[in-house]
Amino acid sequence: MPVGTLANVKTLTPAQLAATGAQMVLANTYHLHLQPGEGIVAQAGGLHRFMGWNQPMLTDSGGFQVFSLSELRKITEDGVTFRSPRDGQIINMPPERSIEIQNALGADVIMAFDECPPYPAERSQIQESTARTYRWLQRCIIAHKYPEKQALFGIVQGGVYLDLRAEAARQLADLDLPGYAIGGVSVGEPPELIDQIVQATAPLLPADKPRYLMGVGTHREIVRAIAAGVDLFDCVIPTRFARHGTALVAGERWNLKNAQFREDFTPLDSSCPCYTCQTFTRAYLCHLIRCQELLAYTLLSIHNVTELVRFTQRIRAAIIGDRFTEEFATWLNPPESALIS
Amino acid sequence: MPVGTLANVKTLTPAQLAATGAQMVLANTYHLHLQPGEGIVAQAGGLHRFMGWNQPMLTDSGGFQVFSLSELRKITEDGVTFRSPRDGQIINMPPERSIEIQNALGADVIMAFDECPPYPAERSQIQESTARTYRWLQRCIIAHKYPEKQALFGIVQGGVYLDLRAEAARQLADLDLPGYAIGGVSVGEPPELIDQIVQATAPLLPADKPRYLMGVGTHREIVRAIAAGVDLFDCVIPTRFARHGTALVAGERWNLKNAQFREDFTPLDSSCPCYTCQTFTRAYLCHLIRCQELLAYTLLSIHNVTELVRFTQRIRAAIIGDRFTEEFATWLNPPESALIS
Repeated sequence: MPVGTLANVKTLTPAQLAATGAQMVLANTYHLHLQPGEGIVAQAGGLHRFMGWNQPMLTDSGGFQVFSLSELRKITEDGVTFRSPRDGQIINMPPERSIEIQNALGADVIMAFDECPPYPAERSQIQESTARTYRWLQRCIIAHKYPEKQALFGIVQGGVYLDLRAEAARQLADLDLPGYAIGGVSVGEPPELIDQIVQATAPLLPADKPRYLMGVGTHREIVRAIAAGVDLFDCVIPTRFARHGTALVAGERWNLKNAQFREDFTPLDSSCPCYTCQTFTRAYLCHLIRCQELLAYTLLSIHNVTELVRFTQRIRAAIIGDRFTEEFATWLNPPESALIS
Repeated sequence: MPVGTLANVKTLTPAQLAATGAQMVLANTYHLHLQPGEGIVAQAGGLHRFMGWNQPMLTDSGGFQVFSLSELRKITEDGVTFRSPRDGQIINMPPERSIEIQNALGADVIMAFDECPPYPAERSQIQESTARTYRWLQRCIIAHKYPEKQALFGIVQGGVYLDLRAEAARQLADLDLPGYAIGGVSVGEPPELIDQIVQATAPLLPADKPRYLMGVGTHREIVRAIAAGVDLFDCVIPTRFARHGTALVAGERWNLKNAQFREDFTPLDSSCPCYTCQTFTRAYLCHLIRCQELLAYTLLSIHNVTELVRFTQRIRAAIIGDRFTEEFATWLNPPESALIS
């Protein structure tokens, strides 16, 4: 899922986004609550109509954003209290409120409101927080007004403590939810820990339900998580990199501002079917980036999203063709040195 | 012509631009000389291929930009000398150099290198400058390497002195050029002076050649110039306004950030066939602008360019249908008070 924080995937029209092959888009509950407010989105007929996207959508719960706020926040059993960075108002966010907002936004998939502890954290703190996240999930299930229209996913927390992850996964699986997410990864821990968390958690979640690894990722993280059973991802990498002039090509990251591209009249990626690669040269993209022309960010976003979608399409085809582990061996079995670095 | 200063119409892909109905695009010689340099554009196969635009293009001569530089410049009979704002280098720009650069860029229409005096200016200064512009034009004609491939337009100067304008127009008409431009208008003079200049100059230029009013304009300026015989315009208004959150609707300028649009779920202009009006509401555009989302500028540019193109299409249809003066009477015969303001 490309990330459409404020009801748009930055720099892309829905038509351009659909042409990348992306099917599902994530939007952020916290951001949309602050601006324009869920009331306006609901009046517009829901997120799909508001932003002109008629394919599946998912909203996060706002938990991750609230817990990332530097502004003072208070966590109690009831929920979270924080100061709005928009107007300084105090906002109460119990789990029920997050679900109420997500009901109003109207995405196809909504997420339970979870506590997202920082990394690193003590085991006792994670244990307490994971237990509270489970109690909040039960309140979210009760608060959810449209279970027949919006699928509510639970979120496995547990930090880097694999036994806590496993316990949470088993608890959630018992609830027979329409989908499951692994949260609280890629929050600063080393890559080999992400691998361990995903490999210890994903197989414990029901294989016949969507399994979603939140906030991931890179080519490497995606392919390894899929090997562990994950189906769904969201990440700002393709669009954020684009706005920094970085293109994803053949699993590498290219800074297109570099002088080597100034007179390179070949396509960005000659194997890529996207509009950018079919229409423009590296020299042109380099020129636009050097001039800080906004069009550069659109063209690179088109390519980067297409590249990541194509990567998952290649993985799907390899799985169906029963050649996944061979075809993606270099990603799945990197040398030890690569893992540790 | 939408303005594509740095080989792109800001925020629009060529596909989006073509969908507006725009046929011809202007690019700026001065800017492209500084970055990426005409050598790179020529290596790419010319401007059309470089920027992916396969319809007509025009390059200005760079005269207007050079004369707008605050950085010290020296004007002699030979040409202009100025300091590059990019790297501080001293650049000599005789008329021959401007043509050489435009030959390398490869637009379908190229412009003579003219002197653009400021407004206001003394008659004697304008007289001298207009005479020099004529001598520079003769040098441009000689320097032009591809007259069979690129049409060289002459530029009528003369400031606000209508007799100097008329004299220059007659001199240029005698040269039997492929097209003619009226330059040095909309440089700060009151609107009624623009009217007078255009009405005194355009009819003296050959009616069977394209007549181009440079750097104009608004709905009002366009319709009145067409009445005087002008065929071609360029202006940054539609795209620059878009980047300030301003939409052109029904001849008015709307600031879409205004609170009145927050809950307005109607299209921007229900009579407009553009992607923006067909897909989104005013409330959504207002939301994107308030969040400073770059997509807002793309969507408003699509609409604003479409609006101005449609305006000229309506004028063309009215002329063909012999109902131009009636249909556009409110623009052509405004009350005196509107003219003076």
